Amino acid sequence: MVRAGILGATGYTALELIKILLRHPEVQITAVTSRQAGRPPIASVHPQLTRRLDLPLEDLDAQALAERCDVVFSCLPHSASASSVKAIADAGVRVIDLSADYRLRDTASYEQWYGDSHHDPDRVGKVPYGLPEYFAEEIRSADVVANPGCYPSSAILPLAPLLKMELIEPDDLIIDAKSGVSGAGRTPKLQTLYAECNESLSAYNIGRHRHTPEIDQVIEMISGQHVEVVFTPHLAPMDRGILTTSYARPRGHATETSILGALREFYMDKPFIRVVDHLPATKDVAMTNYCDMTVRSSRGRVVIVSCLDNLVKGASGAAVQNFNVMFGFPETTALI
Amino acid sequence: MVRAGILGATGYTALELIKILLRHPEVQITAVTSRQAGRPPIASVHPQLTRRLDLPLEDLDAQALAERCDVVFSCLPHSASASSVKAIADAGVRVIDLSADYRLRDTASYEQWYGDSHHDPDRVGKVPYGLPEYFAEEIRSADVVANPGCYPSSAILPLAPLLKMELIEPDDLIIDAKSGVSGAGRTPKLQTLYAECNESLSAYNIGRHRHTPEIDQVIEMISGQHVEVVFTPHLAPMDRGILTTSYARPRGHATETSILGALREFYMDKPFIRVVDHLPATKDVAMTNYCDMTVRSSRGRVVIVSCLDNLVKGASGAAVQNFNVMFGFPETTALI
Amino acid sequence: MVRAGILGATGYTALELIKILLRHPEVQITAVTSRQAGRPPIASVHPQLTRRLDLPLEDLDAQALAERCDVVFSCLPHSASASSVKAIADAGVRVIDLSADYRLRDTASYEQWYGDSHHDPDRVGKVPYGLPEYFAEEIRSADVVANPGCYPSSAILPLAPLLKMELIEPDDLIIDAKSGVSGAGRTPKLQTLYAECNESLSAYNIGRHRHTPEIDQVIEMISGQHVEVVFTPHLAPMDRGILTTSYARPRGHATETSILGALREFYMDKPFIRVVDHLPATKDVAMTNYCDMTVRSSRGRVVIVSCLDNLVKGASGAAVQNFNVMFGFPETTALI
Amino acid sequence: MVRAGILGATGYTALELIKILLRHPEVQITAVTSRQAGRPPIASVHPQLTRRLDLPLEDLDAQALAERCDVVFSCLPHSASASSVKAIADAGVRVIDLSADYRLRDTASYEQWYGDSHHDPDRVGKVPYGLPEYFAEEIRSADVVANPGCYPSSAILPLAPLLKMELIEPDDLIIDAKSGVSGAGRTPKLQTLYAECNESLSAYNIGRHRHTPEIDQVIEMISGQHVEVVFTPHLAPMDRGILTTSYARPRGHATETSILGALREFYMDKPFIRVVDHLPATKDVAMTNYCDMTVRSSRGRVVIVSCLDNLVKGASGAAVQNFNVMFGFPETTALI
Repeated sequence: MVRAGILGATGYTALELIKILLRHPEVQITAVTSRQAGRPPIASVHPQLTRRLDLPLEDLDAQALAERCDVVFSCLPHSASASSVKAIADAGVRVIDLSADYRLRDTASYEQWYGDSHHDPDRVGKVPYGLPEYFAEEIRSADVVANPGCYPSSAILPLAPLLKMELIEPDDLIIDAKSGVSGAGRTPKLQTLYAECNESLSAYNIGRHRHTPEIDQVIEMISGQHVEVVFTPHLAPMDRGILTTSYARPRGHATETSILGALREFYMDKPFIRVVDHLPATKDVAMTNYCDMTVRSSRGRVVIVSCLDNLVKGASGAAVQNFNVMFGFPETTALI
Repeated sequence: MVRAGILGATGYTALELIKILLRHPEVQITAVTSRQAGRPPIASVHPQLTRRLDLPLEDLDAQALAERCDVVFSCLPHSASASSVKAIADAGVRVIDLSADYRLRDTASYEQWYGDSHHDPDRVGKVPYGLPEYFAEEIRSADVVANPGCYPSSAILPLAPLLKMELIEPDDLIIDAKSGVSGAGRTPKLQTLYAECNESLSAYNIGRHRHTPEIDQVIEMISGQHVEVVFTPHLAPMDRGILTTSYARPRGHATETSILGALREFYMDKPFIRVVDHLPATKDVAMTNYCDMTVRSSRGRVVIVSCLDNLVKGASGAAVQNFNVMFGFPETTALI
Repeated sequence: MVRAGILGATGYTALELIKILLRHPEVQITAVTSRQAGRPPIASVHPQLTRRLDLPLEDLDAQALAERCDVVFSCLPHSASASSVKAIADAGVRVIDLSADYRLRDTASYEQWYGDSHHDPDRVGKVPYGLPEYFAEEIRSADVVANPGCYPSSAILPLAPLLKMELIEPDDLIIDAKSGVSGAGRTPKLQTLYAECNESLSAYNIGRHRHTPEIDQVIEMISGQHVEVVFTPHLAPMDRGILTTSYARPRGHATETSILGALREFYMDKPFIRVVDHLPATKDVAMTNYCDMTVRSSRGRVVIVSCLDNLVKGASGAAVQNFNVMFGFPETTALI
Repeated sequence: MVRAGILGATGYTALELIKILLRHPEVQITAVTSRQAGRPPIASVHPQLTRRLDLPLEDLDAQALAERCDVVFSCLPHSASASSVKAIADAGVRVIDLSADYRLRDTASYEQWYGDSHHDPDRVGKVPYGLPEYFAEEIRSADVVANPGCYPSSAILPLAPLLKMELIEPDDLIIDAKSGVSGAGRTPKLQTLYAECNESLSAYNIGRHRHTPEIDQVIEMISGQHVEVVFTPHLAPMDRGILTTSYARPRGHATETSILGALREFYMDKPFIRVVDHLPATKDVAMTNYCDMTVRSSRGRVVIVSCLDNLVKGASGAAVQNFNVMFGFPETTALI
C-alpha cells in the first residue's frame, strides 16, 4: 500500500481527490492537513466522508508528513503550496502539486502572472507538467509533478495535437471556455454565492486569467509552435464541468472529416480521451476522468468543442492518473 | 410624490424593494444607505439598477433622512434596525421595518429568540403586524409597521383563516416549509455558496427557527386560538420561493371540499391571495406578490399547500402593499 | 384602449408577452388562441395567470380575430405563423410576428434555412425588422413587423454599431452565444428535460443555426458592410438569458477605451441599451428589456460581451417595444 | 464472472445501474434491451457510456436472454416488467426487478394502486422485498427480488426501526418527502421540462402516490405494527436526491438523545446507513449508496430527517446491493 497525505484538505479539489483515492486498491490515506484548530475529524468539514475516512485534520508539519507518507498531494493555494512542496520533496517524498506553482517554466513569468516571488525557484522548469497523455515518461520518474489547470487541460488536449499535426494555424486561436462554479473554490465570496451565480452566466478576467500563459506554454511544448491564445473564461450556473469552444483556421487542405479522423487516430490509445462525432455536453463527463471532444467546420473556421469535469480530469482525477504513472499502476486504476 | 428612503440597501430584499418602487407612480426614492465607504453609486453593488436609479450609497444619518424622506423602509438586520427605526420614527417619519424587530409583541420573547435586548422597547407590542389582509385598519394610521417574515406569511395566510373558521384543530399543526436560497441573505457564508446549495436540499434550525414564535403569535392574534406549531424550514436549490406544506386535523365535519370552498370565499376580496384547485408551484408566484394556496385531505389529515415569493410577498412586495395602505394608494399599485 | 390578440398563447414567449401587456395601461387583451380543445381558460395552461387574465383559449379564426383586435401578436411557430399573419394583416389588423417568418428578406434564403416555401411571399422583404433602436421609422407605420430572434438581438446590438462606425473589421467575426433553456420552447423533448439540461452545458447546431443568416443580413442592413459570422449557440442550465461573447479585430487605431466610448455615445439615447464598464451577467438583465454590453481588448482582438433576457428583449419585451412605436406610445411603456 | 442483462436500458435508472456494474469486478454486462429499432449502440442514447460499454440495444427476447445471462435487472416500467420477469425467471434466471411489480404483497392492492391486473400473480407475495438491511436472508436464495421504491427506502429506513424499538407511536406518522427530478423518468413530459422544474418546487399526488401502500406494508412487515402514513411527495429543482422529513410522536420516555442513540446502535453494522448528529443534506449522499439520517425533538414531536440518492440507494445501488447478497459477494462491492 502506498501511504498518501493530502495538504489543504478542506476544499472541493481535496474532497474529490479523497473520494477517488478511497476507491484505489493500492492507496491508504494516512494524513490530511488544514489550518483548522483542534484537529477536527475531516468528516466534520466534508460530511460526505462520514464513515468513509476517519482522520483528523492536522497541522501541516512537512517533516512529520514525510515520515508517514510515500506520496503527498498538495491542494494548497498557489504560493503557499510551493513552500510546503519544497520541504516535503526535499525530505525525499514524491509530491503531486495541484496548485499552479510549478506549471509555468520560468520564475519571471510566474512572478508576472501570480504577483509573488517563487518559494522553490530551483525546481521551476524542471518539474514535468502532469498531462500523462504527453509527458508520461518524465512523470514516471519525477519527484514533483505539476498537475495541470482545469481550463488548460480542456483547451490543450484538443488543440495541441491539431497544431502538432499541422491541421490548424497557430496564429489565430480563440478559446471560449465555460466553467461550473466549483472551480472558484470553497472560500465564501460574494461572487460565488448561490443567489449570485444561479440563473446567471458571465465572462470574467478577460485577457487576464492566469491560465492563459499556461495554455500558451504547454501547447508550444507539445506542438513546437508558438501561440498566443485569446482566452475568455465564463462562469456557468452548474457545479461541475468545463465546456471549451475553440476557434481556429484550418491549415492546408484540412477538412472537418480529415481533422476529426486524425484526432481520433491520434488519441486512439489514450484511455481518457474520447473523440466523438456528436457535440458533447459537460454532463457526459461529469464525475469522470474523461475528456470528450469533437470538431466542426463552419465558414472557413474549425470549431473545436471539448469538455471535462473540472474537479476530475481538470484536477483530482488527473492527479491520480499522474500518481498511477509515477508509482507504476495501470493508468486507469480508480478512475474508470 | 412620496419621498422614500431605504436603509441597508445592499441586500436582496432592498434590491427587490427598489425595483418595485421604481414602478410605483407615486414614489420617488431619495436616499439609500449602507456602511460602504466612499458613497459608491448603488448600481455598483446592484448592476441591475444601472441607468435605473442614480443614487449614492450614503451613511445612515437618521436626522438627515428624516428631512429628505416621507417614508423609510428598513432592510437592516434585526437589532441594528430597531435603533435606526426608533430615531427616524421619533423624528416623525413613517417607517416600514422589514427586519424582525417589531414583530414579536413582548420584549421578553424578543430577547429569548433573538438574544438581544430591544433598542426600542416602548414601541414593542404597539406596532401593527404588516399583513394587510388582516391588519389594514391599524396599518393605515401607523407610524411604524412590522413587515412579516417570509415563512410566517406563507404559513399564516392559509392556516389562520382555517383556525378562525374552526375548520381545523389548533393543537396539532405541523409546518414543513421549503425556501429558496435568497432568503439566507447576501453576506458570504459557506452554507450559501453555490457549490454547497446547488443539487442539495436540507432541513435546518429544526425547533429553533426564530419564525416559530412569530407564527404562533400571529395565528393566535387572528384566530383567537392558542397554537404551538412544529415548524421545519428547509433550504432548496433555487433563488426564490417558499412552498409550505402544513398538516392539520379537520375539525367537526370539515371535508376537503368544504375547507377549500370556505377558504376561497374567505379570501375572495383579497387581491393577492389565490385559492386554487391545483397544487401550486413556487414558479407560479415567482416575481409576484401573490400567495397561492390549496387544500387536500388524506387519511384523516388536512394537507395545506401554500407558496409565495420570499422576496416579494414574503418581504418587499408586502412592504409596498403596506406602504400603499399607509399612504392611501390602491393596495395593488406597483404590485400587479 | 388598444385591443390585442395573441396567437399561439400556450408557450413561454406568449406567457411573457401577456405578463407585460397586463402591465400596459393602454392595452386590453381580448383574445388568446391555441389548438387546445374545449376552450380551456388560459390559466389552466399558465397557472401564473390565475386571477390575472380570464380568457379562454380559442381556435384561431383570422376573420373573427380581426374584428375583435386592433393588434395581433403571433407567437406561432414559423411557417404556421405566416399563414395566419397574412390572413389577419390582409383583413387590416396590424401584426407583430414573433416567429422567424418575415425576418429574412428573400424567399430563397427563407426556403434554404427553414426548408419550407413561404406562405406570404408578397410581404417578404417589405416588412420592417423589429429592432426599434434602428428601424423605428419603418416600424411606426408598418402593418406587419418582424420581431427579431433572441440570438440575433444579442449579437447585432453590439456588433452593428461597431461595424457602422468602422471600429472593427467585418471579415473576421466570431459569435459564441450561450442561452437559457426557455429559448428551446415548451414542447416536451428529450433534450430539454430537466435531468438532461441541469448540470450540463453544450454547443448545438454549429454552423447550421437559422439565426446565422438573420445576423448576417441585419448587420449588413445597419452597417452597410457584408459579413459572414461564425455563430455557435450553446445551451446553458438556466431558465433565461443569453450571454454573447463576440470576437473581432479592431480597425485602424481603435482601442478598448475608444471603442467603449464610441459605443456608449452611440447608444446614449436608447433607453434599453446599457453600455457598461463591468462585465455584465445575464442576471443583471433577467426579467427586463435591457441589453447590457461592454468591450475588452486582448492580444489584438476586441472581445465584446452582451446579454439580454431571451424572453424579454429577445422576444416579448421587444414585441411590446415595437407595439409602443407602432401605436405612438412612449417606447418604454410597460417595459421599465 | 456473472453475466448480467438489463431490460429497459434507455432510462436514468438503467444508466446508473450500468455505471455501477462497470465497476463491479465480478460482473460482465452481456445484454441491454430496449424497443429502439435497428440495434443502435447503447452509447448513442447514453453518451456517458462511450468507450465504456460497447453493446447494441436489442429487442427483449426472454429465451435468448436466459441463455446469455446469469442475472437480469429489469428497469422496465411497472406492468411491462412483470411479463418479462416472469418469462425470464421461469427460464431459471435470477431477476432483480426495479419496477414496482412485486413490491406489494397481494394482487388486489396492486390492482387498486396500479390499475392493472398483475401479469405474474403466482409470484406476488413470495418475492422478497429488496432491502438487504432487513431481508438479506430471503434475498440470498431468491429467484426474484423486488427492488424497493426510492421514497419508501428513504422513509422506511429511519421509521421502521424506531417503530420496532417502540420509540415512536405508530398511529400518527407524517412523511414529507422532496425528490430530485430524475425520479420522474426520462420520457419527455411537460411537467419535467427544464423550464418548468427549474426555480420551482411543488407537491404532487398528495394522498394518491403509489408508494404509500408500499411504505405502510414494509414498515408493518419490519416493525409488526400497523401504520397508515400520510405521505406527501414534492418535486425539487435538482437532478438527484430525496430528503424525507418525517413527523412522529415519541413513545414512553423516548428523548432526542435516546432515540438517536438507539438508532445509531441499531444500524451500527449496516455499511450503508449513517446515523449522524448533524442535519444531513442530499448532497452528502449524492452518487453514493448511503442513506444518512438523524433525529430532532421539537414541541412533543420527533422530527426525523433522512436522505439518499434516488438513483443509487433509491434504485440501482440497492439493486447491486441485492445482487451482491444473492450471489455471495461482499455487500459493498462496487458500491463504496
